[in-house]
Amino acid sequence: MTTEKERALKLEMLRKMREQEELARRRLSSVKHKVAILSGKGGVGKSFVTANLAVALAVKGRSVGVLDADIHGPSIPKILGLHGQAMYAGPAGLFPLEGPAGVRVVSADLMLPDDDSALIWRGPIKTSFLRELLSMVAWGELDYLLVDLPPGTGDEPLTVAQLIKELNGALVVTTPSELTQLVVRKAITFCKQLKIPLLGLVVNMSYFTCPVCGTRHRLFGNTSSQDIEKQLGVRVLAEIPVDPRVAESADSGVPVVLAYQESEAAKSFLKLAEEVEGILNSQSAREPREGS
Amino acid sequence: MTTEKERALKLEMLRKMREQEELARRRLSSVKHKVAILSGKGGVGKSFVTANLAVALAVKGRSVGVLDADIHGPSIPKILGLHGQAMYAGPAGLFPLEGPAGVRVVSADLMLPDDDSALIWRGPIKTSFLRELLSMVAWGELDYLLVDLPPGTGDEPLTVAQLIKELNGALVVTTPSELTQLVVRKAITFCKQLKIPLLGLVVNMSYFTCPVCGTRHRLFGNTSSQDIEKQLGVRVLAEIPVDPRVAESADSGVPVVLAYQESEAAKSFLKLAEEVEGILNSQSAREPREGS
Repeated sequence: MTTEKERALKLEMLRKMREQEELARRRLSSVKHKVAILSGKGGVGKSFVTANLAVALAVKGRSVGVLDADIHGPSIPKILGLHGQAMYAGPAGLFPLEGPAGVRVVSADLMLPDDDSALIWRGPIKTSFLRELLSMVAWGELDYLLVDLPPGTGDEPLTVAQLIKELNGALVVTTPSELTQLVVRKAITFCKQLKIPLLGLVVNMSYFTCPVCGTRHRLFGNTSSQDIEKQLGVRVLAEIPVDPRVAESADSGVPVVLAYQESEAAKSFLKLAEEVEGILNSQSAREPREGS
Repeated sequence: MTTEKERALKLEMLRKMREQEELARRRLSSVKHKVAILSGKGGVGKSFVTANLAVALAVKGRSVGVLDADIHGPSIPKILGLHGQAMYAGPAGLFPLEGPAGVRVVSADLMLPDDDSALIWRGPIKTSFLRELLSMVAWGELDYLLVDLPPGTGDEPLTVAQLIKELNGALVVTTPSELTQLVVRKAITFCKQLKIPLLGLVVNMSYFTCPVCGTRHRLFGNTSSQDIEKQLGVRVLAEIPVDPRVAESADSGVPVVLAYQESEAAKSFLKLAEEVEGILNSQSAREPREGS
């Protein structure tokens, strides 16, 4: 291909990108609070926390959307019992699927043809895919949009987070063994790059209460939340216990907040929802923004 | 820059790449068995398993090296008590650090100036860095080199795995909640792309035995290993229990295989080492390879 043709193609792609970004911005303007959920690394239960926080907010009467932007391992649909379903496209755009408690869900997983492929997409393709997706989704009026980012604080979650305009803040999900100064500092750096506030930490798999003898075990270390709060000024908003029924409810597609309302885990998520609402409401009271 | 100059620069980079790859190949030719450790996603304890398997093999009298190729979150040095130390460069190349039981360790973490930076490297830079690293390390004679890959089965771990020539096989670390047909099939696809055999699965966080009342809890689901083995023909080589002392020993930098030799966890790792040796020895008996 000649350089001339290449240049024209690049310009055309750039124009399309801008167009999609403008569309996405407009579509997201009907969302009051946009919160990114990140983690120091994978496997700490980021999607589990995102899904259950969404349901907890919905149970409190809020309208909530979840964008599953973790393309490597989209797990939100499975946790919310939507795996295998497909999104509906109409003249107004692409409609999120409705999950438990009315939570509206958008995920790459709801658009993929088959389960077996290892989804070996190069980074730029993933970004393009998300950009296009965001330009098409008709979210409708939402109090909250939770964005489940790819794991880590590297280039991939950063690029994805940059696609979503005007994020109001981020939550970091960790486990006790990951709750280190290092991880929290990386998260702070990440949020600075995005120019959004770090709302606080959620410590997942915090403890396990033996259902037979009632002993409480700190399975994955005994890091003191108070120390982290004191040293780095970042609050721990909730500690979620390990509960074998969580694995079970994940398989059934009913999140633990709904499936076991009396469990310690469910109560922790309702407390987390309250904390997040409190912070975001005081934030928007402090800094009124245009168009919201 | 002119197109002419760009072309010359590209050619020069390509030449350097080839040169480094040839050097790496030669340096790795003194390693008998090269095994990649992968995972369906992050946070399943891939590095914990890699480090403890390495020590278990070393305890059995083998010479073992570990390449921490998980640049996003290099955690091998911490688990093996080497965090904060630096590798030594001599005329013969870069020398691995010596960890517990004589395990030789190479990690990006041992070359980074400071802990705070979020390490936001773009993919190609990471690959270049690893390629250069591999061309410099003087491993010496090794029975085993374990390569801790970045999490997942996406493009990043694939690219990294392709840098290491003549891998003899891969182990997949999962947790019970991740031990799904989907994850195992993705791992099979991944190994096919690399043209290496999938040696088997390691199920981490498999169960927890309450030290107070002795009850055994399946904390993260009850997936039957037998089912996976029957359906997909991939063996489960070991089940590693959750042990609160693991978090503690990770902090102290002494892996559980050495710190708590009588624990169920330590015994599982010794069993895993035996299984891996058995498979690789019968494999090399079956397919003698040049130069090894």
